Formats: sequence, C-alpha cells, structure tokens
Amino acid sequence: MKFGGTSMAGTERIRRVANIVRKQAAGGNQVAVVVSAMAGETDRLINFCREANALYDAAEYDVVVASGEQVTAGLLALTLQSIGCPARSWLGWQLPLKTIESHASARVESIDGEGLIAAMERGEIAVIPGFQGVSDLNRITTMGRGGSDTSAVAVAAAVHADRCDIYTDVDGVYTTDPRIVAKARKLRAVTYEEMLELASVGAKVLQTRSVGLAMKENVRVQVLSSFVDDDAASADDYPGTMIVSEEEMNALVEKGEMERQHVTGIAHDKNEAKIILTRVPDRPGSVAHIFDPLAKASINVDMIIQNVGRDKGETDVTFTVPQSDLARAQALLEDRREEIGFNRIITDSKIAKISVVGVGMKSHAGVAATMFRSLADRGINIQAITTSEIKVSVMIDEDETELAVRVLHTAYGLDAPDEAA
Amino acid sequence: MKFGGTSMAGTERIRRVANIVRKQAAGGNQVAVVVSAMAGETDRLINFCREANALYDAAEYDVVVASGEQVTAGLLALTLQSIGCPARSWLGWQLPLKTIESHASARVESIDGEGLIAAMERGEIAVIPGFQGVSDLNRITTMGRGGSDTSAVAVAAAVHADRCDIYTDVDGVYTTDPRIVAKARKLRAVTYEEMLELASVGAKVLQTRSVGLAMKENVRVQVLSSFVDDDAASADDYPGTMIVSEEEMNALVEKGEMERQHVTGIAHDKNEAKIILTRVPDRPGSVAHIFDPLAKASINVDMIIQNVGRDKGETDVTFTVPQSDLARAQALLEDRREEIGFNRIITDSKIAKISVVGVGMKSHAGVAATMFRSLADRGINIQAITTSEIKVSVMIDEDETELAVRVLHTAYGLDAPDEAA
Repeated sequence: MKFGGTSMAGTERIRRVANIVRKQAAGGNQVAVVVSAMAGETDRLINFCREANALYDAAEYDVVVASGEQVTAGLLALTLQSIGCPARSWLGWQLPLKTIESHASARVESIDGEGLIAAMERGEIAVIPGFQGVSDLNRITTMGRGGSDTSAVAVAAAVHADRCDIYTDVDGVYTTDPRIVAKARKLRAVTYEEMLELASVGAKVLQTRSVGLAMKENVRVQVLSSFVDDDAASADDYPGTMIVSEEEMNALVEKGEMERQHVTGIAHDKNEAKIILTRVPDRPGSVAHIFDPLAKASINVDMIIQNVGRDKGETDVTFTVPQSDLARAQALLEDRREEIGFNRIITDSKIAKISVVGVGMKSHAGVAATMFRSLADRGINIQAITTSEIKVSVMIDEDETELAVRVLHTAYGLDAPDEAA
Repeated sequence: MKFGGTSMAGTERIRRVANIVRKQAAGGNQVAVVVSAMAGETDRLINFCREANALYDAAEYDVVVASGEQVTAGLLALTLQSIGCPARSWLGWQLPLKTIESHASARVESIDGEGLIAAMERGEIAVIPGFQGVSDLNRITTMGRGGSDTSAVAVAAAVHADRCDIYTDVDGVYTTDPRIVAKARKLRAVTYEEMLELASVGAKVLQTRSVGLAMKENVRVQVLSSFVDDDAASADDYPGTMIVSEEEMNALVEKGEMERQHVTGIAHDKNEAKIILTRVPDRPGSVAHIFDPLAKASINVDMIIQNVGRDKGETDVTFTVPQSDLARAQALLEDRREEIGFNRIITDSKIAKISVVGVGMKSHAGVAATMFRSLADRGINIQAITTSEIKVSVMIDEDETELAVRVLHTAYGLDAPDEAA
C-alpha cells in the first residue's frame, strides 16, 4: 500500500491511513506500506536548500529532503502500534534500497526484501519511507518528485506482493480528464502499456517510471483514493483501477468483467512547443545535424514532420519539444545555423497533443481514420500525426484542446450512459 | 565545533554559523561541526509522536526526532559550500556513531573517526547531526535532550581534536547565575570535576554526561557564545570558558593566566524536594528498607540526614529526591509503611540546595566553616549538609536562595571589581 502526501498531511490523516492499513491486515494480508512526506513538507525542505545554496549539491539536498518521509514513516508506525498493529519503519539505508549514484534523480537498483518478508511473516506491518534510497557510497539518494510511487512498486516486487495499491487523491484512472468531460468513466482496469501512454501524455496519476517498473517486474498495481468512504470501498474487491498485463486484461474480458474496447482513453498534453526550421537543405545527414545536438542536451524531441518544400532540394522540418526546453533548444539550433543551413526558425507554444490510447487498436483497423474524420467534422486542423502500436496522437491548436477531447470521447463510445436517460 | 538549536534556527542563522566555521578553517584548523536541530523543531516532532501514540515506541520516536538534526546538518553543509568551503554531512549511521540499544536515552559506545579524519585531511569540513547514533541492530538511536553536547565531545575524542568548542546562547561559565548576582564573573577556565558539580546542581550550560565523557576522554572543551561580535571574539584565543583537566588548570595558574581560588563557583538548585519519615525504628537494616525500593525505581536520593529522635530506639530520616519524582517516591514509601515502620511522612518542595564548588578546597581547610558562618550571620537556617572533595552543599528554605547565593559569592571573594570604584 502506498499513501501520498495529502493522505499523510498531519497526525489525524495518518490515523485514517492506519485504519485503512489495519483493515487490509485484518483481512489476512501481510502488508508493507510506503509513505510520502506530509503535503507541503518537501517544498518547505527544498526551499531551505535553495536559501542555503542556490546551486545546491544534490547529495546534501537529498539528506535534507529525505527527512520528510522519515518523519511520516515513524509516525505511521507509531499510529499503527497505537491501534494494536505491530509495526516498524524501515528506512532506505536499512532495507537497503540501493539506487544508482545519481542524487535527486536516482533510480532503484535493487531492494533486499529478506528483512521485510521476515518482519511481515512475524505479523509486523513494514512502513517504508518512499522517495529515498542509499547509494553504493552509503549516502542517501532521492528519486525525484513522485518517486514514492516507484518505491512502492519496487518494494512490491521485492516482497513478491500480490498487489501494489497506490492511494492518491483521485479514485482511479479515467477514460479522460473528468474536468473536461463530465461523462468520463473510471476504468476498472488498464494495461501497463496503456497506462504508460496515458501517463506520458499528461494523465498524471502515477509517476511514469513506476509504471515502467511495474511492467518490467509484472507487479499488479491498483490506483485508488484514500478519501473514499471505507465501507463503500470494501464492498468491492478492487474499488480503484487495476493496472495489469495484457494477458490478465484478456482474461478479464473473457470472464466478462471488462468490455473489449478499441480505445481505452483520450489524453491531452499542453506542455509541448513546436519548432519549424524552414528551407533546410534536403540532403543525407541534414536531419542528424538538427537532432544530434538536441539529444546530447537531453532535450526530448517528440513529433517530427518533414514537408518537402516549394523549392527543389529544400524542406521544412517541424518537431515538438517540451515547453520548458524551448528556449534552450532554440539557442542550440541558432548556434548551428550555418551547419544545418536552415533559413528561419519559427516557434509556437500554443499547441496541444491529443492522443487516443488502447491495446484494442492492435487488432482493429480504422481507429486513426475515426480520429481524423471526427476532428475534421468539427473543423479542427491537424498539424502533425504520430502513431505507435497502441496510440494515435495529433498536434492541434491549443485553444481546441477541450473540444477535441470531448469530440473523440464521444466518437469512441466512451461517454458514460446519461443518468437522466 | 558544536552549535545549538538557537544558533541553527533558520537559514539566516545557519549562514552566520557557516561564517564562524569558515573563520576557524581559514585559521588553518581542520574542522568537524556537530549541529542541533532548529530551535523548536525537536518539540514539534515530539508533539507529532505524542499525537500518534501517547505511549510511544522509543525506537520509532527516534526515527522521527532524529530528522531535525539531519536537516540542519545537510543545510549547514550546503551553506558552507555556498561560501567556498568544501563540506559534507555524516549522519550517525554513516560514521557510524554506535550507541547502546537504549532508544531515546542512548549513550555513545564508539565512533569510527577514520572517515572523518580522511575527509578533514582532504580539506572537507565534516558536518555531523548531534543527538543521534545507530544501534547494533542498525536502528537510529537518540541520546536525550542536550545529547548533541555529548555527540560533540565524542566526535572530538574520535578525531583526536585539540579542542571541542561548544557554542551556546551564553558566553561561558560564570562564578554563579548572573541573573541573581550582577557581579558574577565569567571564568576563564574550570576543571572537569568542577563543571560536573556545577552542572549537576543546576548550572545548565552543558549536558552533564558530555562533561563526564570529556573528562574520561580528556577532551578540552570550550563553552562560548555564537552571538558575540566576531571581531571581539577573535581578539582572544579563548573567548569563552575552557573546561580542562586539573593538570592543565595548575599549569594555567603557574603561568599566571588564572588566579588560584579556593572556591570557583556557587550553584543553586530548586528542583529537589524533601521527605521526612518520622519515628523510624533505629535498628540495622531499617534504612535499607527505605532506600532500596527508591533505588530500584531509579529515584535519585541526594542528601540524607538521620536525627536520633526524642524516643529511644526511634529516629527521623530526612532526605531529598527530584521534585519530579516526589509523588512516585511518596507512593512507594506509603506502600511499605508496615515494613519500614515509620509514623508519619512529611514532604516539602519549598527547599533549595546551595553548593560551593572548587578544586582549590582540596588543599584548603575552612571553606565549609566560611559557608556556615556567612549563612548564619544572615539568619539563613541550614537544614542539611553534604560534602564531596570539591563541593559543600547545604539545604535551605527556597525563599532564601537568592540571598544565600549573593552572600556566599561575596564571602568567597568572587564578586567582580566594582566598575564605579
């Protein structure tokens, strides 16, 4: 079980969490719990670091910020004990949860699950601070914002857990953003691949890396809310959204517990920006001159389109980068104007990427065609297209985001039945 | 160097501390720094623990409260780096600083100084969170309030430091409490034995245990203020009070840097309470019946007087215990009324203990006589007396504390010269 910062914000809420944990333990489960810091605490600690040293040393930053989860882990263990559940905390260096040396953005290398398994077999609930580990040099590391999700999946894998329940402030994964489409439906299950595509295009329920790790380690993850009514939740075995393998998804469909859909969800992302380089010489290697320097600077290039231009031997190259990297990308390209040989550089951050995602489209043609026709019918201009095996994405004008999401949600039959009907 | 919670309260004050540290490093010293949590932080964390679990598990309590020093250690390392001093933090488990298993009141067992010494030789300032260590079971331990002083002395011993400078909110050890006697003087040096006696009777500058450890390990400790003007402080090699061995003290006296005094200081303690058991049978073993149960309950008995009573074969027994243990002691004794055979139990917490302390009295008779005569001259009644090799203590009425301290301070020639004269 993993609880986020909102669920851990203060001793009253921690008591609520302890009761949810007790219910699972009372149901005969062996339980390990991964916790975030109290909401706001990590920001407070990061601020201290910035005040102390604007260009902070990530190793010392990790020492400071990891303390937030240390506090909540100790407090949850104390609270569990106070309601009759034996419990103890296991800090990152105590497990140990080994990570690569990369401070402030570490990745899990290995977890020793032996101590945890022995403790759980003794009937103890194991409480583990998320977000933190220890490096080979025996120093504290942290895994970047949202890293507690990854901690939880890694711990679940290490103890061979049946399930990794991630409690958040939403009650599951939806067919699309419910703030845009009132008829969005909560999904009973999605596959790892779908969740990865949904997360990477803006459905920020789980840290992307945690989903990748769950897929690699085959950990069944459930996303659910810690704020739903206890009894309502316990009426259903899986009150949230299960994230599972494609095999398990197929089995659920065969058992009739899930409907087979071509499209599982619609995601949108307004955090990309478009760059157009005009009149690039159309010769071998010219594209490499553009994208090699961006890759070296760790700037992720997403959609790429090449339009053979008006003049022979020249082409316009259009691509997207994260908005936060736009200025850097632009400067890098200007520096290489001679080498690349482009004429003008045009940028536009008023774009959005809309994606339809679903494992069902592997075996069903026509998903892309439906998308293009539906958008065209409403006069929405498509500026670029990319596809993967389970996703079709289009670039459109940012102002048309909400309209496009609503149109597609209806087009793929995802709208919840009208309650008034 | 050790800095307390007031000195570490916020990033602005930590910057001040970093500048003091830099000055020592710039003077050619290799420096290790032990820090407390920000003032108020430990109380905030203890409160969380109490809210989580009134009867808290000391092992989890330690996980929570140790985080306060972890934060300030990381922040001081960051701040030192920002002013050009290479620095890194060393947490208790990283050194390791091994303690006994006794959570929330651990004692240092050993420190591995190798890593620290190597780091300091590389020119790095080592920053160590005070108050915390690690047990043989690899769990975090803490050493009780004021434990950072002990951490500092233990680290100083482990790295064979020339000096352990403890920065506090007072600028040294005084001949007596300056709030009572305006003419109290700051001492240039005191011996470990004197400091122990002064600390144990209420001059709360250092944690008593830290002084005992300094004596055992022969660590030269200096008490000084982190709030004095930097330049004034640097004008003097030792701006605070040095706590040294008797040999070093004798050397200072011979060099004329210290005056030989029979009495070094006057301490007072209002935290004791008096218990009188009347008409206890005066037979072998009756005193054991009183004090054995108190000892088993870890109640410290201090002064003891036996007055052979009015009736033959009976005696009144008077003794003192800490006020905080009075109710418990009284209950224990009432339970054993039959066994002990006393008639009445009379208690009084309106008492004070006044002590004159000085290694000089070892070789000088008449110190006690001066004390008794001076107090008698002012009509102050002495209710009990205890002595050690370097201390004479008397029990008096609490209301007469200030008067007694002033009278004795003058009687032993400790008053600072009158500036107006």
